[in-house]
Amino acid sequence: MPISFDEDRFVDELAELVRLPTVSSAPDRTESIRECAELLQSRLAALGAATRLVDTPRHPLLVGRLERDPTYPTVALYNHYDVQPIAKPDEWESDPFRLRVDGEKYVGRGASDDKGNLVVGLHAVEEALKRELALNFEFIYEGEEEVGSPNFGTALGSVHDFLKPDSILVLDGAWVSRQRPAIQYGCRGLLYMHWNLRTGTAPVHSGLLGGAARNPLAELMAAAVQCCELRTGEIRIPGVAELATPTTAAEVACWLQAEPGPEELMETYGLKGLRTHDDVELVSALLARPTFEIHGCVGGYMKRDGKMTVIPDQAQLLVSMRLAPGQNPDTVFDLVRDYMGSVNTDIEIVKVAAAHSFSGDADSPAIAAACRALEDAFGTPTCKTRSAATIGAVAEMYQQLGAPPTFLMAFSLSEHGLHSPNEYFDRAQAAGGIQALINYFRGAEAR
Amino acid sequence: MPISFDEDRFVDELAELVRLPTVSSAPDRTESIRECAELLQSRLAALGAATRLVDTPRHPLLVGRLERDPTYPTVALYNHYDVQPIAKPDEWESDPFRLRVDGEKYVGRGASDDKGNLVVGLHAVEEALKRELALNFEFIYEGEEEVGSPNFGTALGSVHDFLKPDSILVLDGAWVSRQRPAIQYGCRGLLYMHWNLRTGTAPVHSGLLGGAARNPLAELMAAAVQCCELRTGEIRIPGVAELATPTTAAEVACWLQAEPGPEELMETYGLKGLRTHDDVELVSALLARPTFEIHGCVGGYMKRDGKMTVIPDQAQLLVSMRLAPGQNPDTVFDLVRDYMGSVNTDIEIVKVAAAHSFSGDADSPAIAAACRALEDAFGTPTCKTRSAATIGAVAEMYQQLGAPPTFLMAFSLSEHGLHSPNEYFDRAQAAGGIQALINYFRGAEAR
Repeated sequence: MPISFDEDRFVDELAELVRLPTVSSAPDRTESIRECAELLQSRLAALGAATRLVDTPRHPLLVGRLERDPTYPTVALYNHYDVQPIAKPDEWESDPFRLRVDGEKYVGRGASDDKGNLVVGLHAVEEALKRELALNFEFIYEGEEEVGSPNFGTALGSVHDFLKPDSILVLDGAWVSRQRPAIQYGCRGLLYMHWNLRTGTAPVHSGLLGGAARNPLAELMAAAVQCCELRTGEIRIPGVAELATPTTAAEVACWLQAEPGPEELMETYGLKGLRTHDDVELVSALLARPTFEIHGCVGGYMKRDGKMTVIPDQAQLLVSMRLAPGQNPDTVFDLVRDYMGSVNTDIEIVKVAAAHSFSGDADSPAIAAACRALEDAFGTPTCKTRSAATIGAVAEMYQQLGAPPTFLMAFSLSEHGLHSPNEYFDRAQAAGGIQALINYFRGAEAR
Repeated sequence: MPISFDEDRFVDELAELVRLPTVSSAPDRTESIRECAELLQSRLAALGAATRLVDTPRHPLLVGRLERDPTYPTVALYNHYDVQPIAKPDEWESDPFRLRVDGEKYVGRGASDDKGNLVVGLHAVEEALKRELALNFEFIYEGEEEVGSPNFGTALGSVHDFLKPDSILVLDGAWVSRQRPAIQYGCRGLLYMHWNLRTGTAPVHSGLLGGAARNPLAELMAAAVQCCELRTGEIRIPGVAELATPTTAAEVACWLQAEPGPEELMETYGLKGLRTHDDVELVSALLARPTFEIHGCVGGYMKRDGKMTVIPDQAQLLVSMRLAPGQNPDTVFDLVRDYMGSVNTDIEIVKVAAAHSFSGDADSPAIAAACRALEDAFGTPTCKTRSAATIGAVAEMYQQLGAPPTFLMAFSLSEHGLHSPNEYFDRAQAAGGIQALINYFRGAEAR
């Protein structure tokens, strides 16, 4: 039975969340984030859920359990209530923290990532309660997703006894396009490093010592090239590639349906080329292989079109590796550090952040049910794929909460511009999302 | 006959020059630079010289000819009257543009580089006139040395008929230490480049496209490694190394006497190591081989200790090559660009600055005379060496003014801190410098 979408109430509730500037990376937004967590706590309490607000060194984790009958199956919904910084304030056409309805679009920071999905989840649960579905519900609302979930594992650990889901729906992520609904059963891990090298105590002039003095910029670059064939992205650090869980031909066939091809990718993101233009290579590079990325190089003269001839005394590379399922970030970090021992022992490798990759069972009944739920709601075949992103919370929930089926089921679209100016959510995705969740809930009830 | 050093007058005249903040890289100092050029013009006129003040797109070149008898030999003196920026204002113990006498030190920006040497030259010429030495004198005062002499060649070209020196003394540079007076008969050239690469139209996120998207930072680094073994400094660009003029064992033996060894170099400049610790390799790297130096890398996230996972859409390397005698910067630039055609055709190589290397004849009688002049003035054996620096004006003067013996004969010391806070000149170098020039003049008169 199709739901009737109460758009006015949906927009009001979304606006109430968007109004709070929950920018988790901004030190001066701590109060807003706490206020948002408490607002959500009262929303969950109003539904009848017991809640726990877990303080962390940074932003709180809110969990809730709505237990109607201990013998019922339990569906857990994950969302995050923090948002990205507004980025390029000039390009916003209206106040990012004041939800604006523009035809079928709901414009505001976090409207799609992830507050829109959160309100979809709440509306679906309300509808399930109205229909008296034989289910319990759990809610896991994170306040640190946009800063890499530094405290999620510890915070969840302190309340994990409170939760016992039979499946976990991560209501975060995005489909490639409206025409390609997707369930993502895995995501990449992350290892972020600083590579530091100091070769002196003060900068020197190349007209005095150039040729004899060591150049820390140059040595860091040489080391990076030893670790990765920087044009193809192939990793040369011994032992890393082998850790990746092998993929099956069936999986890759699904990815090819879900993911954009090379031409579409280039056009969507304005790229002048890709590392590979082969479809299979492309999805493998995005979803199944580790990456080695240089995000910045600090040291020397750092202004475009400069003409300084300084040789710096120290430099730093900002390096990340996205990790495939099977590649534990701590193990990979040890491999990097070991290898650097044979490359350049003066380079100090610092682990800045680590998050585990995740891959669930693509063939599990829960994922099949989720696909059907989406297909029935949106009238479009649904693909099973992985995410190229890192959502550290996913592996943590899976491991700490008894390894239930866990997957990403979000209603955001790439076109919503999740981290960009004028981010928006939209009516069709909101209404379809609520319907899809109800569909899933009914299947979960029956299983 | 030893001169009597009139310290009061020397300090007054140096103070008058230091008072003018002739920072050639600072757009708001144009007036001061012009004022200084006009002050020097009046000084030369007072000595009886005819002068030409040559305007350029940036700062004027001043030349003068003091012709006492057309049959006399002519000695030309080169100096520059522009100075470095003050750099680290907090570390100056007094106003950089107010000469402060501190015991035997004369402290101020430009006191040693190069205004002190300029006043030494003027005092020596006055003394020569007093003694009625049978010489003519020429003066070449540049206002753009500290910004790479962009207009020197053109400006000199417009007045080169006015000058006809029998030798050119470049009163610029520095000895390694007070104990090692040196004549430098060569200096390195310079090719400064921007390497630009654009791979897209906007930055992308590594959690979305990492692995598939090209990374311009990484590609530029890979290209740099193809061009140079970045740890040893060995250049891999075909055809470049071969252009360097071979050196003789006798030359290298002189360099070893003149130049600091590895231990001294590391201690003086606070280095944690050198590319080579072999004495001969070291002086060869500094004086006889081309270099390839990365001075900065612009693009991506450029703050130390950052944690952004952006993949930039464009990046730039700031690259310089110091060139050995024989390596024409334009030829080398063509070789770099040709080679890049086989390395990464998307990288745009832009020539930002080029200056010719120079090497005179180490065994010429003029240089032997200059060495004796220094030895007699300072009582210390004098070495013949080259400079690791680039003074683009040297090759220009040599070529445009009839290829007379041309060499660097400066009285600055490394310890004077030429480009650093609290730069100073000193009494012993001033008095000794005037004496050494008089000694040289007397030899030139006799030849």
